[in-house]
Amino acid sequence: MDAIERLSKIFERFPGIGPRQAGRFVQYLLRSSPALRRELADAVRELGGSVKQCSECYRFSTAEGKLCGICANPSRDKSSLAVVASDADLLALERSGTYRGKYFVLGGTISLGSEKMSGLRLQQLLDAIDERDELAEVIIAFPANPEGDATADRVRDEIVRNTTPGKQIKVTSLGRGLSTGSELEYADPETLKNALDSRR
Amino acid sequence: MDAIERLSKIFERFPGIGPRQAGRFVQYLLRSSPALRRELADAVRELGGSVKQCSECYRFSTAEGKLCGICANPSRDKSSLAVVASDADLLALERSGTYRGKYFVLGGTISLGSEKMSGLRLQQLLDAIDERDELAEVIIAFPANPEGDATADRVRDEIVRNTTPGKQIKVTSLGRGLSTGSELEYADPETLKNALDSRR
Amino acid sequence: MDAIERLSKIFERFPGIGPRQAGRFVQYLLRSSPALRRELADAVRELGGSVKQCSECYRFSTAEGKLCGICANPSRDKSSLAVVASDADLLALERSGTYRGKYFVLGGTISLGSEKMSGLRLQQLLDAIDERDELAEVIIAFPANPEGDATADRVRDEIVRNTTPGKQIKVTSLGRGLSTGSELEYADPETLKNALDSRR
Amino acid sequence: MDAIERLSKIFERFPGIGPRQAGRFVQYLLRSSPALRRELADAVRELGGSVKQCSECYRFSTAEGKLCGICANPSRDKSSLAVVASDADLLALERSGTYRGKYFVLGGTISLGSEKMSGLRLQQLLDAIDERDELAEVIIAFPANPEGDATADRVRDEIVRNTTPGKQIKVTSLGRGLSTGSELEYADPETLKNALDSRR
Repeated sequence: MDAIERLSKIFERFPGIGPRQAGRFVQYLLRSSPALRRELADAVRELGGSVKQCSECYRFSTAEGKLCGICANPSRDKSSLAVVASDADLLALERSGTYRGKYFVLGGTISLGSEKMSGLRLQQLLDAIDERDELAEVIIAFPANPEGDATADRVRDEIVRNTTPGKQIKVTSLGRGLSTGSELEYADPETLKNALDSRR
Repeated sequence: MDAIERLSKIFERFPGIGPRQAGRFVQYLLRSSPALRRELADAVRELGGSVKQCSECYRFSTAEGKLCGICANPSRDKSSLAVVASDADLLALERSGTYRGKYFVLGGTISLGSEKMSGLRLQQLLDAIDERDELAEVIIAFPANPEGDATADRVRDEIVRNTTPGKQIKVTSLGRGLSTGSELEYADPETLKNALDSRR
Repeated sequence: MDAIERLSKIFERFPGIGPRQAGRFVQYLLRSSPALRRELADAVRELGGSVKQCSECYRFSTAEGKLCGICANPSRDKSSLAVVASDADLLALERSGTYRGKYFVLGGTISLGSEKMSGLRLQQLLDAIDERDELAEVIIAFPANPEGDATADRVRDEIVRNTTPGKQIKVTSLGRGLSTGSELEYADPETLKNALDSRR
Repeated sequence: MDAIERLSKIFERFPGIGPRQAGRFVQYLLRSSPALRRELADAVRELGGSVKQCSECYRFSTAEGKLCGICANPSRDKSSLAVVASDADLLALERSGTYRGKYFVLGGTISLGSEKMSGLRLQQLLDAIDERDELAEVIIAFPANPEGDATADRVRDEIVRNTTPGKQIKVTSLGRGLSTGSELEYADPETLKNALDSRR
């Protein structure tokens, strides 16, 4: 396997990239300047060096210390903790500009069928909840799909079972209803039911 | 203009149908049996005869009397009234199987720009609200888009202004949040804000 | 089944129309004026009366006599006959503005699996070829898909087998190659092979 | 700008990749093993070292000598030269399994508006045509779009103007017509015209 094929095979492992697009990436790099290729190789290499997982929320960041910028920010509200599946979901919530609490990245959702939690940071989540005295509410913020729902059920159960008796932790989930742009006519019955239940 | 073109032009006025598909409809009818064509012509003609608008909710139905099946049903909950834009939205809510109250079909939404309510049954809605003594809650159930929101604001204002003083009518709107299938990563900030606000 | 459902069921039989869009058509007609509904019913009814199949090319038309406008046109080139699957394909060729010969509508293509020619006007085609003395070329103009190709092979065989010995009829097929807009990178090998073979 | 953002910005420059997918690539690499990241960085770095442009057809390859595998292959037909826009188009023609001649990669197509040939290897093409004594046919194999057609016209003109008088070089273009899968009904008039003209 030559350098072209080897690089193409690596790009094929990237999320959403097939052989055709992987080939185009390689062609793009071949036509690019040696400087850009060097920049790319360096940036990839540097990822391992400068990026670490935040020791509190577990998202990846290049912050200097052990904590990421959000976790190190003293003005964030310590009483609420949003549990999200991925860094991307954390960033989406952050972009919405409403949430001022803390985050915890679980690392994925249960894959249906196996129902396994392996690879997810459930124990770390339970420990974090146990340790943080000011915590009053855990907001489960998983995608509104079967995997997200199954993970939410499981996480909720574990939190309830593991909470030190006497400690009052409210566990909530993101509200369901009509998303921006939804038309009733095309909405699924479940969404309409949720929209009716959460009317206000 | 011959019969083929004339029919094609009529089909072009159907919602979502362009010249090409209109032509295919005509070709389909040309290849069909005379019996099917007769059936279609009869069914179209009969629409005008047997279908009327329910005098209470204003949806189209073929019910015998002045009321449609839902409005004639004595077991429906008279304390709540869902205001919808169209028959299709009414049927979608009905299919969701949760709502047991009454309906009112406004007949559309405001078109932005004009902000006109012309063609919408606003006065009839206000009269209905005024006349129904058992009514306690009006649920505004419009699509979650700018037109739906503008119409909701307007309807809500008018209801508040027109309600007989002393009469207690709660005006609610369908809940917003994550629709079934929504992923946080791709959700718009407005939807995430709503999902956070309506968490439970 | 009431008039709304009955009409909806008929629309569902239209090509490419599902229950949802059929329902929208009915709603559109309900909201329309009685005049439009009458116009539609009349136009459908009239199709059977004023439209006939041309006795030569078999397409549907509202021409007065037995022949459609193209077949009645004395300036069309009698030496070539384009065999097409449908009226729509005939009209597409006519719109391209290049072809000045005659047409024959076969009425469809073989459905793979069955390989049956039933419903197709093969015998009428063979008779037409046999009867027309000035005919020199039959152009097979079917879609470039497996059904079209199977029909083309079959039609070609039958023409060769049935042609009166001594009569010289050339049978050609539409050229294959790159369609407008095709990029080599995404073209299938068959198309590229054809494009190479037919280079000029 | 930290390592995450820097790498994300580089991925955004990849063809067809927006900020969102660039971010996903970085997240994928963050979750991957250090070994995969090292492999990727090495493969990118190696591209510059082991890949060179073939001195005859100008495509990128990792062949040992100055020529790529195709150009070095003595059994390829020296009498025909296919001029393509890109490596990807060359590979597509090669996959079709019909062409046994030589290639020349022009390096792109004219961008309409500017009509400039800058960046394209036109002079190298003319020199190659001039030098190769056995060459009898140049096959212009550009995409069937306005840019490809404009480039083809220009290349054809230049070849004609620059050919040593007395030398006989045929210049052809890939055939146009129905691509595999095309339906007449949806084909553009230009394609149908080409399909009729190239019928056989």
